[in-house]
Amino acid sequence: MDSQIRARVQSSFSRQTVMATIGAAITQIEQGAVTIELPFRSDLCQQHGFVHAGILTMLVDTACGYAALTLMPPTAAVLTVEFKTNFMSPAIGEKFIARGRVLKAGRTLSVCYGEVHAYADGQEKLIATMLATMIAREDTGLVG
Amino acid sequence: MDSQIRARVQSSFSRQTVMATIGAAITQIEQGAVTIELPFRSDLCQQHGFVHAGILTMLVDTACGYAALTLMPPTAAVLTVEFKTNFMSPAIGEKFIARGRVLKAGRTLSVCYGEVHAYADGQEKLIATMLATMIAREDTGLVG
Amino acid sequence: MDSQIRARVQSSFSRQTVMATIGAAITQIEQGAVTIELPFRSDLCQQHGFVHAGILTMLVDTACGYAALTLMPPTAAVLTVEFKTNFMSPAIGEKFIARGRVLKAGRTLSVCYGEVHAYADGQEKLIATMLATMIAREDTGLVG
Amino acid sequence: MDSQIRARVQSSFSRQTVMATIGAAITQIEQGAVTIELPFRSDLCQQHGFVHAGILTMLVDTACGYAALTLMPPTAAVLTVEFKTNFMSPAIGEKFIARGRVLKAGRTLSVCYGEVHAYADGQEKLIATMLATMIAREDTGLVG
Repeated sequence: MDSQIRARVQSSFSRQTVMATIGAAITQIEQGAVTIELPFRSDLCQQHGFVHAGILTMLVDTACGYAALTLMPPTAAVLTVEFKTNFMSPAIGEKFIARGRVLKAGRTLSVCYGEVHAYADGQEKLIATMLATMIAREDTGLVG
Repeated sequence: MDSQIRARVQSSFSRQTVMATIGAAITQIEQGAVTIELPFRSDLCQQHGFVHAGILTMLVDTACGYAALTLMPPTAAVLTVEFKTNFMSPAIGEKFIARGRVLKAGRTLSVCYGEVHAYADGQEKLIATMLATMIAREDTGLVG
Repeated sequence: MDSQIRARVQSSFSRQTVMATIGAAITQIEQGAVTIELPFRSDLCQQHGFVHAGILTMLVDTACGYAALTLMPPTAAVLTVEFKTNFMSPAIGEKFIARGRVLKAGRTLSVCYGEVHAYADGQEKLIATMLATMIAREDTGLVG
Repeated sequence: MDSQIRARVQSSFSRQTVMATIGAAITQIEQGAVTIELPFRSDLCQQHGFVHAGILTMLVDTACGYAALTLMPPTAAVLTVEFKTNFMSPAIGEKFIARGRVLKAGRTLSVCYGEVHAYADGQEKLIATMLATMIAREDTGLVG
């Protein structure tokens, strides 16, 4: 894969202040597929001590968005049109691994599929899944 | 409305550590309807300086979940089955107001509708909308 | 509302062969809002004798799509990007009324909200709800 | 796989009157995975002569529902809670193949993933994708 694409994704990710706030890192960037990981933190939880559904959604939305960006023209910026997330099991684990990949890359719209796995004791468990629509916008510097 | 319901929601919300982490507060609790607000913070943004879609989703998911909880039996806990969110406009504003309300309260499942408005210069603008499914679980103290 | 818009919607609807096949009719066309109705038919059912979820979805998707079309430029065609539907109650009734309306009309994308009510004994009951994304395409005569 | 499960699915499918109306057939039943096919018919189309999004949705919803049923107890009936469908390409082809499979089988709720491919000239093309939530209900003979 073009190293420039990887650099663009990495650079954009580093401008996402919320990712530093929650402690998430981008761990893999391939053509049409991106992985983001988040170690468990007790200050990111809902009322039962599980990581909040919104945090999981943020991880996998971001993974899907950057997966789409890897297949867009160099001058494009990516924005989330919409997504749907199903939650299968409580978010318990040492860390959470969100993987997004492109199902269909279009000129304007891309459709992505994502999954979040909880990692504990050397094993992964599927805890959430996403279908998302991303849009390519001309990167004007204002919105990009 | 029963003040005990309001107390239960307030108490559960206060155990959501992520809400303190991002600075969100619950501002209204009615039967079948809950409002949560979040002042803008530059450390909750995506790459263009807008509040991250995942943060907006977290607010409105939580509003929908507690809206459902107000109509559940006193011994129930609420969990998110799934949701879908559409993003209409960039999350720019002084604060963000997420409102969730119950469309259909069932014994097991509840269907909720939610909206996020951005507030700026005294005006609200609709920036995101959600359809969500919530499930009532017996609150065992472990999950609840 | 411009009578030309109404004529465009009516004309496009009449080219939807599936609507004649199932017996659906468009009963209201306003700016940003369209209603479609379907009398109950026993040959449109799932295994329990309720109208199939896919039929309800077809009605409200079509209502949402045409609601979006009423706010698009005269040369535009509308296509469904995606939708999500929640089913609240079994589809039992004399007829089914699907209403779609536009939440946000954009240049390219529109976000719509829809509901299906079952009508029986003079009363309506909410049985399904939809959030949908529609896209405007230049009507080339091929895709339109 | 238990041949009784296959017989249950087949029997339930044959009671779906709408499947005969549109000409769909169930072509594969495995544990947690079901395939339904529909030959193209010009009376199932939207305004541009493509098969209607609602028809595709009906196929893949049904495939997902029966995929879930194969993993449920013998006395259970399956109902659709909700689904979300993305449409990637126009529904053009000789026939349409909808495949549903279970991502997570729960006691009450199951999460399914589905795809619709258009088949033409010996080749398949992905045209729609679904995430769905199914619920197991006790089959009372009334609802089942």
